[in-house]
Amino acid sequence: MSFKKVDLSFQSCGSEYQESDVVIYSCPMDSTTSYRPGTRFAGNAIRVDSIGIEWYSPYRNMDLKDYKTSDIGDLDLPIGDVEAALDVIYQTTKQILNDHKKPMMVGGEHLVTYPVFKAVSEKYSDVHMIHIDAHTDLRDEFFGRKLSHATVIRRCFDEVGPGRIFQFGIRSGDKHEFEWAKAGNTHLRKFDLVGLEEVVESLKDKPVYITIDLDVLDPGVFPGTGTPEPGGLQYKELLGAFDLFERLNHIVGADFVELSPYLDPSGASTAVAVKTLREMVLLLHK
Amino acid sequence: MSFKKVDLSFQSCGSEYQESDVVIYSCPMDSTTSYRPGTRFAGNAIRVDSIGIEWYSPYRNMDLKDYKTSDIGDLDLPIGDVEAALDVIYQTTKQILNDHKKPMMVGGEHLVTYPVFKAVSEKYSDVHMIHIDAHTDLRDEFFGRKLSHATVIRRCFDEVGPGRIFQFGIRSGDKHEFEWAKAGNTHLRKFDLVGLEEVVESLKDKPVYITIDLDVLDPGVFPGTGTPEPGGLQYKELLGAFDLFERLNHIVGADFVELSPYLDPSGASTAVAVKTLREMVLLLHK
Amino acid sequence: MSFKKVDLSFQSCGSEYQESDVVIYSCPMDSTTSYRPGTRFAGNAIRVDSIGIEWYSPYRNMDLKDYKTSDIGDLDLPIGDVEAALDVIYQTTKQILNDHKKPMMVGGEHLVTYPVFKAVSEKYSDVHMIHIDAHTDLRDEFFGRKLSHATVIRRCFDEVGPGRIFQFGIRSGDKHEFEWAKAGNTHLRKFDLVGLEEVVESLKDKPVYITIDLDVLDPGVFPGTGTPEPGGLQYKELLGAFDLFERLNHIVGADFVELSPYLDPSGASTAVAVKTLREMVLLLHK
Amino acid sequence: MSFKKVDLSFQSCGSEYQESDVVIYSCPMDSTTSYRPGTRFAGNAIRVDSIGIEWYSPYRNMDLKDYKTSDIGDLDLPIGDVEAALDVIYQTTKQILNDHKKPMMVGGEHLVTYPVFKAVSEKYSDVHMIHIDAHTDLRDEFFGRKLSHATVIRRCFDEVGPGRIFQFGIRSGDKHEFEWAKAGNTHLRKFDLVGLEEVVESLKDKPVYITIDLDVLDPGVFPGTGTPEPGGLQYKELLGAFDLFERLNHIVGADFVELSPYLDPSGASTAVAVKTLREMVLLLHK
Amino acid sequence: MSFKKVDLSFQSCGSEYQESDVVIYSCPMDSTTSYRPGTRFAGNAIRVDSIGIEWYSPYRNMDLKDYKTSDIGDLDLPIGDVEAALDVIYQTTKQILNDHKKPMMVGGEHLVTYPVFKAVSEKYSDVHMIHIDAHTDLRDEFFGRKLSHATVIRRCFDEVGPGRIFQFGIRSGDKHEFEWAKAGNTHLRKFDLVGLEEVVESLKDKPVYITIDLDVLDPGVFPGTGTPEPGGLQYKELLGAFDLFERLNHIVGADFVELSPYLDPSGASTAVAVKTLREMVLLLHK
Amino acid sequence: MSFKKVDLSFQSCGSEYQESDVVIYSCPMDSTTSYRPGTRFAGNAIRVDSIGIEWYSPYRNMDLKDYKTSDIGDLDLPIGDVEAALDVIYQTTKQILNDHKKPMMVGGEHLVTYPVFKAVSEKYSDVHMIHIDAHTDLRDEFFGRKLSHATVIRRCFDEVGPGRIFQFGIRSGDKHEFEWAKAGNTHLRKFDLVGLEEVVESLKDKPVYITIDLDVLDPGVFPGTGTPEPGGLQYKELLGAFDLFERLNHIVGADFVELSPYLDPSGASTAVAVKTLREMVLLLHK
Repeated sequence: MSFKKVDLSFQSCGSEYQESDVVIYSCPMDSTTSYRPGTRFAGNAIRVDSIGIEWYSPYRNMDLKDYKTSDIGDLDLPIGDVEAALDVIYQTTKQILNDHKKPMMVGGEHLVTYPVFKAVSEKYSDVHMIHIDAHTDLRDEFFGRKLSHATVIRRCFDEVGPGRIFQFGIRSGDKHEFEWAKAGNTHLRKFDLVGLEEVVESLKDKPVYITIDLDVLDPGVFPGTGTPEPGGLQYKELLGAFDLFERLNHIVGADFVELSPYLDPSGASTAVAVKTLREMVLLLHK
Repeated sequence: MSFKKVDLSFQSCGSEYQESDVVIYSCPMDSTTSYRPGTRFAGNAIRVDSIGIEWYSPYRNMDLKDYKTSDIGDLDLPIGDVEAALDVIYQTTKQILNDHKKPMMVGGEHLVTYPVFKAVSEKYSDVHMIHIDAHTDLRDEFFGRKLSHATVIRRCFDEVGPGRIFQFGIRSGDKHEFEWAKAGNTHLRKFDLVGLEEVVESLKDKPVYITIDLDVLDPGVFPGTGTPEPGGLQYKELLGAFDLFERLNHIVGADFVELSPYLDPSGASTAVAVKTLREMVLLLHK
Repeated sequence: MSFKKVDLSFQSCGSEYQESDVVIYSCPMDSTTSYRPGTRFAGNAIRVDSIGIEWYSPYRNMDLKDYKTSDIGDLDLPIGDVEAALDVIYQTTKQILNDHKKPMMVGGEHLVTYPVFKAVSEKYSDVHMIHIDAHTDLRDEFFGRKLSHATVIRRCFDEVGPGRIFQFGIRSGDKHEFEWAKAGNTHLRKFDLVGLEEVVESLKDKPVYITIDLDVLDPGVFPGTGTPEPGGLQYKELLGAFDLFERLNHIVGADFVELSPYLDPSGASTAVAVKTLREMVLLLHK
Repeated sequence: MSFKKVDLSFQSCGSEYQESDVVIYSCPMDSTTSYRPGTRFAGNAIRVDSIGIEWYSPYRNMDLKDYKTSDIGDLDLPIGDVEAALDVIYQTTKQILNDHKKPMMVGGEHLVTYPVFKAVSEKYSDVHMIHIDAHTDLRDEFFGRKLSHATVIRRCFDEVGPGRIFQFGIRSGDKHEFEWAKAGNTHLRKFDLVGLEEVVESLKDKPVYITIDLDVLDPGVFPGTGTPEPGGLQYKELLGAFDLFERLNHIVGADFVELSPYLDPSGASTAVAVKTLREMVLLLHK
Repeated sequence: MSFKKVDLSFQSCGSEYQESDVVIYSCPMDSTTSYRPGTRFAGNAIRVDSIGIEWYSPYRNMDLKDYKTSDIGDLDLPIGDVEAALDVIYQTTKQILNDHKKPMMVGGEHLVTYPVFKAVSEKYSDVHMIHIDAHTDLRDEFFGRKLSHATVIRRCFDEVGPGRIFQFGIRSGDKHEFEWAKAGNTHLRKFDLVGLEEVVESLKDKPVYITIDLDVLDPGVFPGTGTPEPGGLQYKELLGAFDLFERLNHIVGADFVELSPYLDPSGASTAVAVKTLREMVLLLHK
Repeated sequence: MSFKKVDLSFQSCGSEYQESDVVIYSCPMDSTTSYRPGTRFAGNAIRVDSIGIEWYSPYRNMDLKDYKTSDIGDLDLPIGDVEAALDVIYQTTKQILNDHKKPMMVGGEHLVTYPVFKAVSEKYSDVHMIHIDAHTDLRDEFFGRKLSHATVIRRCFDEVGPGRIFQFGIRSGDKHEFEWAKAGNTHLRKFDLVGLEEVVESLKDKPVYITIDLDVLDPGVFPGTGTPEPGGLQYKELLGAFDLFERLNHIVGADFVELSPYLDPSGASTAVAVKTLREMVLLLHK
């Protein structure tokens, strides 16, 4: 019998913030979503369903129980105020980095990656980004706004400049985005992960930030997302990417985004996110 | 055989704007929603499913086919920019009123009522509002914002002042909202429609605007909404209200809001909205 | 910014156990369910969705924020071992009562009421039970077992004897159960709540335990339950019962059971449970 | 242990045809459905889910186990050939009547009532029909066809002539249908069951056939149907009708139609049909 | 602000019929479906959800905006009258071809391919068909009928004779169908697309009609279909087929069929159809 | 017309027990399930949906109609009494084997495999098991119990000892389970089916029992299961395993488990189980 307050930390990640090396936090924001919103519910859906997963990973041969991870829950974001919400995420990430912990952020829509990456790039000026996604997200503005899920990687680009962002799995975007990437601004691989191994090798000793938009997966695997884009990756391919990421010696932070749990009541999409979180937390602890 | 462009106007409401007396338009906006978003999809869900309803109403003994109604579809609202979106709605409504037509607006979240009512109150300075809802919506601000689904009736109040807004069915809100209403600002009836008949009698010859948040219905009847609040009205009670509204000689505009169609894949909630739209269009034609 | 561990206590009920007057705990057990299992997920579904409800109740004119309630989460029950699980619930309840707090238990299947009531009846030897349910639950055994969701009220009867249990809303059971009740063992009202007011009056100053099987509600209102039984109560009728319960001066504990959240992905059934929990917590604080 | 072939007869209705007094059969046909098809799956969904209901009815104080009912399953209907399918239903019903058993038919779309009623009216020339439905179903043709779910009661009328059909709960139809009824062809009660008691009294000793389109129920109660029409009956009202039907001394057959089980995955709509079938079978045995 | 009638043409395909080169039309018919009906709703579901897709295709490096496509919506088909409905489709297609436009038809059940192909084969006497499907559809009759979803390719065969139809992906059918194909009537490739490249090469300069039953995809990718058949194609394989089709110099018309959108409320299946339509329209414009 | 009792035997498997060579039976038990229960409904869901599959298999080139298979339905298992339920399964299997028929068992949770395998191993002392699953299921106890879905293969191991169990596709488990397997107790292949061909060759003439936990499939293919584990097999890979199993000359029994049909209302998961049952029945008849 325990009479402590309910603890719904992500599976086995019940350390206090102070003692942790990796910090999980979720960003319940989906206000710039252009199609089907609902990613704001991802964080807690993942927490609740994480009871269904083992803490041991046969992929990493690591056990969540052997590491110190804290889960500080959904950040408290002002509804409908994009700038203010992004600032909360930015300040939180900055503090986590100052405290010498690694940020493991869970979206929310993809725009929430921007303040995390901004904080990371301020600490690690030579940071590189590996970006796995169905969408380019390279527009300079979208519906007249600079800050949108459709511009997020462009805003990250603004922080670090050309040659630092490596995009994989891309299969949707405006023609101009593909051309802008091709002009040398980002490394953009269409449709699959071919070339990821070489990129990982070249970034082996660099600080690397990883952002995964789970809609890179085929909608068959991951229907619970706002903009399903057929023709994507199998989950085994993503697991293959994680195997490669083991070779990176300096992952400085990571996130995944765009689970919209109510769109897939079977729970399969949330299970994908749960497993992804376990693997990414372990990668950050490596 | 017809080789015209696809026409998905709401059931039998295929008149051109110029010749119409009532104009249907929908506002795909849900950005200030605090719980489950998705009302942006209401308009087109209603259009597509309207094929399942008769054009004759045995309640009104009127037939949609006998009246001129146009359906101009979803307004083109900038995603994530609340002020700009509200302005589009305001300008559109103003034009409709200038053209001597009646606005029949379909939300979207409840905040979209504000610009419609503002335009209406500018034309009819002595307009009164009948507001049927589960929620007070009387906060002065919400999460630090003046414009929110939770403040919408307070903003409408700002346009017309005390004694002009009549609220029914209310069963959720902050304590201060109930007290503020009671202080003489609005007529607020908790839980049901008792007293509506007297209100209708007293407003018989006044210009009246009607706004219905469909979540006033019990979630059993209408689960497809962002914030289901148990203990609400049966649909027959709403039909009873419509019977009363026949006595109003000067309805100057109307709306209903907060259908979130994806939350109820059975289609029953959308069917509620479809029938409500038929009845309200007929009331506006009366 | 807060860097504390994630807190998913039921809406505004974040007190520590020691300082609380009412204790919420949930029992994730559904092993004797004969039709559709899944109630084990009720507790956390209610916690997560409680963000969608106000802390103020216009029914009670009370505010959750003004009272000290703790939420100790799902009890840790051994899967598949009915007796051992019931014992954990019993010991937990006993401790809560010893600590002079009131138990507010959330099921799980209805059998979990038994150990709670047993502990309560040991402390209050003259306790009476108000039981609102679609089903009699009066079998002496079910599929050869004494401990089952279908025998739970009979087991409670074994603790207190005839004349102490008042059943309302019953519309399903074996013929012999109705006859056994009628023989003077329990007060059994079929189909509705008629007579509840008189019962409440007669129990005004007695210790009373309240158990509500939410399947007493019509499946239209509450489809998210294992054994939907058409022809039940509207939620307003249950709210009416809560109004009556305000007259009880000595409610010593309470529970509700049988939400199976995955069966109703619209969230409406969970919303019913969320509101019920708010109202019952406030009744316990009265 | 039993090594007999799987038996999925409706709850406790496992008699052989020869020894039975009432015969259950289902008609998997939905080809003239104009909106959402799927009623062809009703029969077997009801059989499988009937495990969730008691065989004792506290409404009738009767027990399915005390009566001889057979369930001969889905009739084998040629897909897409309306006339041929109706003929199979007609011949089957005729044989059941010849064998001095009572037909209890489960739809399918409402058109399947026609061949059943035709056979019944041939045996009982003075048969009357009680028809409970949301829709008039009185068109003379629909999309150019005489045989359609929308013409079914008109076709039944053709068999028996004016003054023999009593319609209740009607809330949807073409204007001309209401007028045609009013001209003395059928007794048509809009919206509810008011007057049913008088009708039952007047038909007490007449042969009566009962047909219930379950969409007479409010979509909140019964969302699993092709054409949900808000503003319908509560299930308790239908149970009230069944209480009245006990006074009929000569019910010669019955059916209910229009469950589309896949449209309501919660199972609540199927539970409504299961309970309705239990009550109607018991009424036929009375 | 626009006050034009609502326009729900498929994404960016808003040209008037007269000025268009490719014409989209949908056939809301599912009356011969033997298992789960519902494909009649495909056309409008695709239109509404097409807002979620980019108009640029990185596969074709083409942009819908650069081409003239009209969308004339659901054809007006008489419900329940198979022959008459097929005739409407036939006449419409004939007219489109006479007007020197290319038909892009969206089902409906697979039988609707027959009248389109008949019209096409009358204009192009040497037309060949590429047929991608899970099912043979080669029965000569089905439940005693010549015109059925299960006979559709056999009926097309009747128009053009042996050696002109190339089937891929087939994994379900009657034994006799496989044998009949093997006897030299059609080219039938079981399970996958192996050999498609050679077939495309051989048909390079021939008039080719393409029909895709989307149930060729694995149900994991495309659960929203009436007869899910496990073990099918990934969407990438279908995209690979489209790449091959670029080599065909004379595609004269195309269709895809069998989306049943209500069966997959996640929207993933509809997203598959939306993307398929974009790619096929672009192929027709090539 | 047939007036026989309803027959919902699995597709074309309507032989009487006495004359059959293969016996289908289902075990509606899910009491030790640790995450989402519901597999008890698998058997009848498969029966009802089997109408949607052909009786001919193009994979086996065999036809269900050419073989004698009986389907004795759900076994009658005491709810909530694990030991007693397992005994019913054990006794049933023993009798089937004594009657010189082959058992084809359908779960339920995986624990139901144990009594089947126990009976089989008593008849065939040198039996080997091929086990395809996402989970190790090798714990010696789970939540203090010896008999659990998580210990089932360990219990089977207790019957036959080391070197007799061959596990494939495993991607989840406790670290110690992987180590225990590796210590020579079972052959355990992680993640995929590599090496299955060699195993099949080596077991060619041995008695072999096959148990498939369908959650070995990727949740994209098979979301309808209690513990979805991303990164699994495609259905084509399982079909490939069946091709290999044709080489086994002495398959003595088989089962598959863990379909939870209500979790996937699209029916795609049930379709997977239906096809698997057809293929496995045919393999048993080979």
